[in-house]
Amino acid sequence: MTAVRALWYTPGVLHVIDQRALPGRRRVRHLRTPEAVARAIRTLTVRGAPCIGVAGAYGMALASRTRGRTRAASARLLLATRPTAHDLSVGVEVVRRAWVAGEETETAAEQYCARVVEECRQIGEAGARLFAHTPRVLTHCNAGALATVQWGTALAPLRVAHDRGASLFVWVDETRPLLQGSRLTAWELAEEGIPHAVIVDNAAGHFMRTGAVDAVIVGADRIARNGDVANKIGTYEKAVVARENGIPFYVAAPWSTFDPKRANGSTIPIEERDPEEVRGRVGPAHMPSSSAARNPAFDVTPARYVTAFITPAGVVPPRRLAAWLRTHLP
Amino acid sequence: MTAVRALWYTPGVLHVIDQRALPGRRRVRHLRTPEAVARAIRTLTVRGAPCIGVAGAYGMALASRTRGRTRAASARLLLATRPTAHDLSVGVEVVRRAWVAGEETETAAEQYCARVVEECRQIGEAGARLFAHTPRVLTHCNAGALATVQWGTALAPLRVAHDRGASLFVWVDETRPLLQGSRLTAWELAEEGIPHAVIVDNAAGHFMRTGAVDAVIVGADRIARNGDVANKIGTYEKAVVARENGIPFYVAAPWSTFDPKRANGSTIPIEERDPEEVRGRVGPAHMPSSSAARNPAFDVTPARYVTAFITPAGVVPPRRLAAWLRTHLP
Repeated sequence: MTAVRALWYTPGVLHVIDQRALPGRRRVRHLRTPEAVARAIRTLTVRGAPCIGVAGAYGMALASRTRGRTRAASARLLLATRPTAHDLSVGVEVVRRAWVAGEETETAAEQYCARVVEECRQIGEAGARLFAHTPRVLTHCNAGALATVQWGTALAPLRVAHDRGASLFVWVDETRPLLQGSRLTAWELAEEGIPHAVIVDNAAGHFMRTGAVDAVIVGADRIARNGDVANKIGTYEKAVVARENGIPFYVAAPWSTFDPKRANGSTIPIEERDPEEVRGRVGPAHMPSSSAARNPAFDVTPARYVTAFITPAGVVPPRRLAAWLRTHLP
Repeated sequence: MTAVRALWYTPGVLHVIDQRALPGRRRVRHLRTPEAVARAIRTLTVRGAPCIGVAGAYGMALASRTRGRTRAASARLLLATRPTAHDLSVGVEVVRRAWVAGEETETAAEQYCARVVEECRQIGEAGARLFAHTPRVLTHCNAGALATVQWGTALAPLRVAHDRGASLFVWVDETRPLLQGSRLTAWELAEEGIPHAVIVDNAAGHFMRTGAVDAVIVGADRIARNGDVANKIGTYEKAVVARENGIPFYVAAPWSTFDPKRANGSTIPIEERDPEEVRGRVGPAHMPSSSAARNPAFDVTPARYVTAFITPAGVVPPRRLAAWLRTHLP
């Protein structure tokens, strides 16, 4: 079971754990306006595709509580924060429709949040069997409870397998530039007592090649109909190297991450963030002030590198994904 | 032409640029004993396989100047500092033999240093033509003048091509955990006015896949007879992803890096360094204090991922390397 919860709602206030402060401090922010929610998403106070979808839903609910705000402007404000995660548009749209229909927007947001949490629990159930006999698992970035409100996507099957007595060991890519792996995934695993070690992203291939990794599992920010996966920068390299070494590469995601209107990954918008995240975060003068930096936050992993998707309805290989979505996508 | 020089010798003193302080400060250390040289190698004050080979040679010369030091103990002291670079044993052995033969050890060390510098210049000449029409080059770690005394291995052909008017752009992997890319390679490129951008190591694959990289070039710490390459951790991932994208992957090295007695890479010793380099260098509390870390400093890239080696005698593909070494290795 998971004790970590990334956010919760009381009437008029969305409470979020400030993920920038972890693992050093557990600080909670109280967001009362859609502007505050948008700022929290933009600054990565709240992050992880499913989680920002839920935050977007609550942001719309907060907008509906005050006069003078239009649905369109509120949705625009929230959708403009980050371009890659598909979940954000799903969460915003669910509550926008409730608002149009004159329904209770807070209830719609609560239901959306509960649905995401339940889907992550289902992912844990669906995926746990894959890790009963693959004890050494590598993961990239944070696709845990912090990224999804509760349970996680990539971490959900590991949590369930661990609870059932599987003796797991997790290799945690630190995930530069913002270190969501060493800061957040390691924190979640430490909280749950799952053995793990943090490695620099460079070392993942070495441990795969030398036989120390049995499987790779990651979350996703957006998955096209053909199975192309946009996820944290570096995911593509891990997928290529996993396939090169015959190691299964799993992508776990709730329905909100699947973008069935998008035929493939070539048109997924890749957010390029402030180069200062590369240039300035590691320590004083770690690079010349005259050197440029580039900072794409995500990359696209073509479907051919994905062994299977772990969805709330079960495990499915890329070649059957489109049909699977037609059958199962709510 | 290159103005950067990593070390120089005056009678009884080896002067080295302290590479831990770059790019913030240019600080020179003055080493007067083999113990001081060993410490400088161990602490990465001096680093880069060809450069620590030269430092090892001077370390032996310094040992021979004082009474009571044996050749065997001095060689052991220096060789125990770092296991992966082949050059260290070559540099130490050259001066040990001069010492045995009663020759002038300082002269032997000076000649060895001059030979390495000259070979790097030759690598620049041999490799420059490869980059006349491949303007966007990615490199990993630092294989520049700082790693080789002067010119560099991977950077030498880029320097020469740039001097001849090629319009190069260099993608610089920052190279966690110790950031030799962003601290040292970016510094060398900035000094020479070669356009470049630093990226997190995770982003290399993304830029390769999206067509922004025309070639990859790296140095090496040890190259087996069959062409397997030990180099900075992360090199293997870049090589796999380069081949997956049809991008040439070049390895540039002086003769001292080739280990013709070693049939392949499977027995190359991979140094595993202090996990604190992963755990403690990025900022306060960037990971939980209870989480473990692992820190292999190098990995092995199988020869099949290498397009060609750039040697002092020219460019050679892996399948012809063994014969090439028989013909050319001094």
